[in-house]
Amino acid sequence: MSTTSVIPLGDVLLVTIQGELTDHDAMGLQEDVTTGVADSGARGVLIDVSGLDIVDSFLARTLHDLAGATGLLAARTVVVGMRPEVAITLVELGLTLPGLETALTVADGLAKLGGSARIT
Amino acid sequence: MSTTSVIPLGDVLLVTIQGELTDHDAMGLQEDVTTGVADSGARGVLIDVSGLDIVDSFLARTLHDLAGATGLLAARTVVVGMRPEVAITLVELGLTLPGLETALTVADGLAKLGGSARIT
Repeated sequence: MSTTSVIPLGDVLLVTIQGELTDHDAMGLQEDVTTGVADSGARGVLIDVSGLDIVDSFLARTLHDLAGATGLLAARTVVVGMRPEVAITLVELGLTLPGLETALTVADGLAKLGGSARIT
Repeated sequence: MSTTSVIPLGDVLLVTIQGELTDHDAMGLQEDVTTGVADSGARGVLIDVSGLDIVDSFLARTLHDLAGATGLLAARTVVVGMRPEVAITLVELGLTLPGLETALTVADGLAKLGGSARIT
């Protein structure tokens, strides 16, 4: 079963992570998203991590690399829906994700991207 | 055989890289483009890297230096057409090309430059 989904919402790709990812899944995600951006011409990527109880250092690094790669393809990446306990753990691990933009909710993330997509 | 071409499109120079460049070619490109900008008074430079399967660290640095040099000549440089796998590799190498503007396609790049050139 796939634990991630990539949904085009106007000119934004919404990437939902529904459960814990293996390292292999995380690398596949990076490929799926960058290919998705190139194919769709998306201006932005929202990565919804609200389904995650844990973000380990590998996933944190993957998210960071993903933002770098989509940046090279002229799309901005915003991580949304991070749980407070995940944020605390990441900071304790020294992973403050520099260069990653964040927003509290998908709607906030869309607003940040100035996306034309609307969720109703 | 030359692996690069420099084509004036209105007030934008379109630089196409058709195949892998040797380091020597990459340095020649930098000279051709900066001279081209100075001669033509171009406001912008589009570097199309869609023909490249690999962007190594030398070429990445050349692109970065090129953008710096054209910036000093008052022209903006936008790198267009990067393949997703190239973007992933660059990020894995730690080369996020800070200061380089990117766009997905030549048309997007032209729009970014606000160029008067039109491709139909």
